[in-house]
Amino acid sequence: MDQIAKEMLAQVADLHEVPEGAYNIRENGKSAARNTTANIDIVTKTDVSGIDINIKSGTKRESVHIPVIISETGMKEVVYNDFHIGDDCDVTIIAGCGIHNCGNQDAQHDGVHSFFVGKNSVVRYVEKHYGEGDGNGERIMNPQTVVYLGENSYMQMEATQIKGVDSTKRQTIAHLEKNAKLVIKEKLLTHGHQDAVSEFEVDLDGEGSSANVVSRSVAKEQSTQLFISKIRGNNRCAGHSECDSIIMGDAKISAVPEITANHPDAALIHEAAIGKIAGDQIIKLMTLGLTEAEAEAQIVNGFLK
Amino acid sequence: MDQIAKEMLAQVADLHEVPEGAYNIRENGKSAARNTTANIDIVTKTDVSGIDINIKSGTKRESVHIPVIISETGMKEVVYNDFHIGDDCDVTIIAGCGIHNCGNQDAQHDGVHSFFVGKNSVVRYVEKHYGEGDGNGERIMNPQTVVYLGENSYMQMEATQIKGVDSTKRQTIAHLEKNAKLVIKEKLLTHGHQDAVSEFEVDLDGEGSSANVVSRSVAKEQSTQLFISKIRGNNRCAGHSECDSIIMGDAKISAVPEITANHPDAALIHEAAIGKIAGDQIIKLMTLGLTEAEAEAQIVNGFLK
Repeated sequence: MDQIAKEMLAQVADLHEVPEGAYNIRENGKSAARNTTANIDIVTKTDVSGIDINIKSGTKRESVHIPVIISETGMKEVVYNDFHIGDDCDVTIIAGCGIHNCGNQDAQHDGVHSFFVGKNSVVRYVEKHYGEGDGNGERIMNPQTVVYLGENSYMQMEATQIKGVDSTKRQTIAHLEKNAKLVIKEKLLTHGHQDAVSEFEVDLDGEGSSANVVSRSVAKEQSTQLFISKIRGNNRCAGHSECDSIIMGDAKISAVPEITANHPDAALIHEAAIGKIAGDQIIKLMTLGLTEAEAEAQIVNGFLK
Repeated sequence: MDQIAKEMLAQVADLHEVPEGAYNIRENGKSAARNTTANIDIVTKTDVSGIDINIKSGTKRESVHIPVIISETGMKEVVYNDFHIGDDCDVTIIAGCGIHNCGNQDAQHDGVHSFFVGKNSVVRYVEKHYGEGDGNGERIMNPQTVVYLGENSYMQMEATQIKGVDSTKRQTIAHLEKNAKLVIKEKLLTHGHQDAVSEFEVDLDGEGSSANVVSRSVAKEQSTQLFISKIRGNNRCAGHSECDSIIMGDAKISAVPEITANHPDAALIHEAAIGKIAGDQIIKLMTLGLTEAEAEAQIVNGFLK
């Protein structure tokens, strides 16, 4: 693995050396390294590109890293990764993707991640997207996440796209069983002529299930963002969605959060706000010695923390 | 005018006798009575069904009543009413529609109301929809309201549909110029197998324009409601939309409020909540001597007040 790949691994998966626990590092369409543990097995799919990650019931405090690195221009791939997580687990899954594109052709990674989570399990899923490289080719990522959350299970998903992804269409679909709970935290920053679409679709099927979808985004320069969230309450359940966006430059932002109560005991709420940074916040930081650009950067960083 | 017509006029326009000021009462597709004033002229359209209401610049503290009554089963009509409101006006417009359907055929009134409001004017627009009659024929109302709001003008729209309308598709479209302000208050109650769709589309085109769209609804029994609101900020502007719904019985409610910032100085917010009446509120009123049904009715009335 060369220096560029190593630096991208640090960006997308906070990896500075070989991780502990199970991992599968994918580089330019091929498996570059893999480790399995007694409880976590990783098997290459034979029908399509991708892997099956099998986590035994009762697996506690273990982690799986599955970062993807692309540094070849013109590389385009669709990868299917399926997580089969048993009952009574407590695991962390880290799945970043970094594209370094110095060429003139587009580089694209479309990852379809499916989570089949058993009963009473706790899953933390972290996904970071990052792009770099000074070529004219675009860096494109279209992640799709599908979650089936079993009885009494809890999943927290943290999705972050901070820099350098030219075009992204994110889709997250979840089905929750009895007393299952899903928390999604999304952070998105777009700049230049970037275009981002983020769509959530959550079905609260089980009695006592709940979901909280929180998206924070900043759109700079000429970038555009579209946020769509659909929460359907099909049983006694609670759903909340929230979308807060900072708009800067000539950016455009749309928020379309939909809530549907198909059951009289469904309690659903959504909120959204789009606005620019308040002028007095900038001035306050400037009186402390920051330039206007530094003040803006500080506020944006704080907002996306 | 017979007793049924008189009672419906009282329901939709609070009219117990001939109103003061300008009016046009439409009964079963024909003009039943009309009055004009020195400042407000009403002219029958020659190309389509409907009237032009011309309000001179400078008209203050005057009102126009244009109620519509349908008591013939099988009656279906599309009516175009255009309001040409000059500069510096301060007027109230009351436009209710009542359908009394005792027959087996549907009775339907589709009113398309367009408002061309000049500069510095204040317009209060009140619209009430009401249905009754024990026939099998449906009572259908599809009102469309189109508003062009001139510089510095203010319009408040109060739309209420409390009872007896089997099917309704409401559409409200507004374009706001510089410093114009629009306030919409909608109240909707559905029961039985009623189906209601309410759609708002507001373009904040002018600098300093603002809109506040507030919808409160109650869906009972097997009724369904769909609330759509689109607010587009195309300039320095402020937009807020809010949709609060109480769900009861086997009702279904969807809320889809969309906000789009096409300008960095657009500040847009929306909120929506769907839920049932809290059990402790019912119990509290029952301890005061009300039955469960009475307690529910009291809470619903208060919510829609």
